[in-house]
Amino acid sequence: MSYRAPLRDFRFLLDHVVGFDRVAATGRYCEAAPDTVEAVLTGAGRLCEEVLAPLQRAGDTRPARLENGVVRTSPGFAEGYRAIAEGGWISTSASPEHGGMGLPQTLTTAVNDMMSAACLSLQLNPLMTQGQIEALEHHASAEIKALYLPRLISGEWCGTMNLTEPQAGSDLGALRTRAEPRDDGTHAITGQKIYISWGDNDFTENVCHLVLARLPDAPAGTKGISLFMVPKRIPDAAGRPGAANALRVVSLEEKMGLHGAPTCVMAYEGATGWLVGEENAGLAAMFTMMNNARLGVGVQGIGVAEAACQRAVAHALERRQGRPPEAGDTGAIADHADVRRMLAVMKAEVFAARAIALANAVAGDMARATGGADWAVRAALLTPITKAHGTDTGIEVASMGMQVHGGMGYIEETGAAQYLRDVRVTAIYEGTNGIQAMDLVGRKMADGGAAAFALLDEIDAEAAAAQTALPDLAGPVAEAARTLRGATDWLVAQPSDERFAGAVDYLRAFARVLGAHYHLRAARAAGGQGPRAALARVFVTRILPEHAGRLHAARAGAAGLYALSAEELAR
Amino acid sequence: MSYRAPLRDFRFLLDHVVGFDRVAATGRYCEAAPDTVEAVLTGAGRLCEEVLAPLQRAGDTRPARLENGVVRTSPGFAEGYRAIAEGGWISTSASPEHGGMGLPQTLTTAVNDMMSAACLSLQLNPLMTQGQIEALEHHASAEIKALYLPRLISGEWCGTMNLTEPQAGSDLGALRTRAEPRDDGTHAITGQKIYISWGDNDFTENVCHLVLARLPDAPAGTKGISLFMVPKRIPDAAGRPGAANALRVVSLEEKMGLHGAPTCVMAYEGATGWLVGEENAGLAAMFTMMNNARLGVGVQGIGVAEAACQRAVAHALERRQGRPPEAGDTGAIADHADVRRMLAVMKAEVFAARAIALANAVAGDMARATGGADWAVRAALLTPITKAHGTDTGIEVASMGMQVHGGMGYIEETGAAQYLRDVRVTAIYEGTNGIQAMDLVGRKMADGGAAAFALLDEIDAEAAAAQTALPDLAGPVAEAARTLRGATDWLVAQPSDERFAGAVDYLRAFARVLGAHYHLRAARAAGGQGPRAALARVFVTRILPEHAGRLHAARAGAAGLYALSAEELAR
Repeated sequence: MSYRAPLRDFRFLLDHVVGFDRVAATGRYCEAAPDTVEAVLTGAGRLCEEVLAPLQRAGDTRPARLENGVVRTSPGFAEGYRAIAEGGWISTSASPEHGGMGLPQTLTTAVNDMMSAACLSLQLNPLMTQGQIEALEHHASAEIKALYLPRLISGEWCGTMNLTEPQAGSDLGALRTRAEPRDDGTHAITGQKIYISWGDNDFTENVCHLVLARLPDAPAGTKGISLFMVPKRIPDAAGRPGAANALRVVSLEEKMGLHGAPTCVMAYEGATGWLVGEENAGLAAMFTMMNNARLGVGVQGIGVAEAACQRAVAHALERRQGRPPEAGDTGAIADHADVRRMLAVMKAEVFAARAIALANAVAGDMARATGGADWAVRAALLTPITKAHGTDTGIEVASMGMQVHGGMGYIEETGAAQYLRDVRVTAIYEGTNGIQAMDLVGRKMADGGAAAFALLDEIDAEAAAAQTALPDLAGPVAEAARTLRGATDWLVAQPSDERFAGAVDYLRAFARVLGAHYHLRAARAAGGQGPRAALARVFVTRILPEHAGRLHAARAGAAGLYALSAEELAR
Repeated sequence: MSYRAPLRDFRFLLDHVVGFDRVAATGRYCEAAPDTVEAVLTGAGRLCEEVLAPLQRAGDTRPARLENGVVRTSPGFAEGYRAIAEGGWISTSASPEHGGMGLPQTLTTAVNDMMSAACLSLQLNPLMTQGQIEALEHHASAEIKALYLPRLISGEWCGTMNLTEPQAGSDLGALRTRAEPRDDGTHAITGQKIYISWGDNDFTENVCHLVLARLPDAPAGTKGISLFMVPKRIPDAAGRPGAANALRVVSLEEKMGLHGAPTCVMAYEGATGWLVGEENAGLAAMFTMMNNARLGVGVQGIGVAEAACQRAVAHALERRQGRPPEAGDTGAIADHADVRRMLAVMKAEVFAARAIALANAVAGDMARATGGADWAVRAALLTPITKAHGTDTGIEVASMGMQVHGGMGYIEETGAAQYLRDVRVTAIYEGTNGIQAMDLVGRKMADGGAAAFALLDEIDAEAAAAQTALPDLAGPVAEAARTLRGATDWLVAQPSDERFAGAVDYLRAFARVLGAHYHLRAARAAGGQGPRAALARVFVTRILPEHAGRLHAARAGAAGLYALSAEELAR
């Protein structure tokens, strides 16, 4: 069974659910006409089906390894990377000024979804580079841009993000890597970084590390962190990678999955670095790119969910067990009610999570294209939901896919288990899903909930418009939105500990309501009939009901959690 | 961080929640006096802490392997097995007539819980033997009992279950392994069996395979299956393992986890087998032992959840990140609201799932001790819930445990990921959790729901008794029980496809109500105060609310699932 790019779903979502036409109508993205969209989808889809999907297993069974300080990648990854780079798929949204396509992030989101589904461990490499390109576009000097961007965009070089240190994970303020100014304007970077995805490879000419570090006179905490470009090989005057920089890969982590993506412990030993952006403003620079990076990781979860769903459906249509429940049935396990339930739920989950991600990307594109503050806050609000819910969907759908396979699901050769092992990290990296939920109820609701209420207004309007034609769908959506509104009213009146104690449940409930909203829109667009409407009914009757219990839990409060002392927890 | 046997929880559950005193008051189990219970718990606990838990990682990193047709087990497993056998922990509930302790299954359940937590892959070996002992006690001839039971009970030999074939998984009626009668009364067994847990080892004198096969004249389907004892080495007249039987391990499966437990493809090539029980009644014989086997697998999930919870709590108390939210806090991540939420939820989940399992075991013991039909149907009703919910709890708590660890959780060395990889199979084997749910809403409600309603009556009575003292807990429990009763009324009036379409959601909701019920009982026993009551509040406010959405989904019906055609699912 091989991956098939879900082009029909992307086209339908873009055309009928997330309002991509508004993006294409802007001046900035006027190139994103229907034929361009079609060319991007089909081109990326073909790459994923034909080149990347066949690499998926080798990325697991023949992991990246460290040999004499050099990372050797899985068989075929070099060729796969080259195909990604040559197709321009690293830089669909990068600035045309330096060689990018300048297309909307929405299309990059679709491309990333497909690449994640086909081969997550390899896709993580260009995803990191995309983040670095964005950071440089916003914060780097003209010289650094001119030197690095064309090569990152072409894929000759790739980029990494160096944030975490052993004592500084979610709490970046605790980081200790030092940057000592030198007379020539560069800095000597010294410190250890951990969990560096794709910290090295054997297929790009250079590896460009963006490293967070502290200047000698920097204030403590998050306000004393600066950002540096620290290339593996120092470019010469002509921009060719020259002398080796004073940095090395110390070791690779042995992980639960994602074996094809080397996770490096990096040592910087007086490595030459160039300041990116202002001194002590490194964290702010990282935050600029964080929204797209988090969207990108959420989409990793969705892509893996799609692939896991496809594999489970194929297995369930093939595998025969037991007496056909009714005459005319095939005897395939897909006809058994509980297997059918799992398949339908998986499919409905993927559709909902993908709609949220694409709506998020559309909002970001509209913000960039129009400068509209409403679009920017919409994108900001949706980002933690896309990230946390997209990756949770990846984990849950991958696990359900294993379950559909029965005993075969636990055997590695089947490939179903790899999805779960690979995707599990997406709920952790780029800010754990708990951090995302706190971002949603904290920063993203520092506006008193205005962005959330604006979105709820749209959901209400959609439900009202659908009420006559599709009362069985519109009614529950309106009711759920009302419950979510009530919980939001409550939430924004709470102090932070109360918000945080309910954050994960609240985010989940919000995602349920959003998912139902987009399914309703899809059902309406399909005239209330056919498979789109049937899938919407699966979501509304079987998945949306979760929201009420979650909102109940979200309001349970912090006091109950702290009623158990730390000692009692440990007992 | 090492495993600590949760003896306080077992004592509290036995004494105050699941009514173990009734078991100890029966004639059959009068030996199970408090000092015996204490000796069992502390003895098994010490074994698990000191001998088994240190083997856990080696069982993952140094998997069992096949060398020249012989299984070589992980380092230390032979010694670990010997310690289990010598302590009598294989046979705490086996008949004293053949050397067992004859103690209640409830105590074996506690022992299995601890052994699963300490080293799941090794524990699976004695769990299989326990099942075989039970099958032989009920169905074997006096000769077979006399020959095999003492050696299985002592652990000199161990037992396996050979059910699955490539075309016969959940549908055992499709199995093809043949049994040809020979003149000497034995049978020649020929066929291939797959997914045979612990199909061989290098630490017992013999491996005794119970194999399902068809006699030449057998009817098709499940009514033509017979059960055979097929030892690896054929015992001589003195009962010593003699000549090698015509069977072999063809290969070991490469699995997501549980690497220490060899999962074998077995070939029987005219192997000598002895009929166990009546001809063509093999499946019925397997069903006899299935209840305890399913209880045992459910408890595997709970044990792993306990271990994962302990490890996460230890990490969260140790790891410091970020500013302490309040003065007086330690700065440990356990003090952050969302981490605290995860820890409290994990702990509350383990308590609830364990209470269900122990109540299930108590019902089984009471049925055996008193012959009471009410107890038997109670045990039968609870078994699929214990199995499916216990293993789902294992998976969810293990995954949450990884999340508490952040990036470290994805690194294998930490050990958090192994729990998830190991426990994932428990939702699949011994009847998938979907099969469990169908068993609950099908066979176990063929009584029109009488057993379920009797249990709901008890839940109502408990809630009523607690209403005055603990209204904040009793109220939600009573309300949830009412909703569950309504859904049960609906369910028992439905045809099987409707029941099956809602089965998994219904089972989950039932488990939520049961979990809340036992937490309420615990809170009452604790006088409504202290950590027991605090944990009950966590469950009732944060976990119980799930039941309503689940029951909504359970009633969504089958038609909506089949509204999407197979082709549409695949598209």
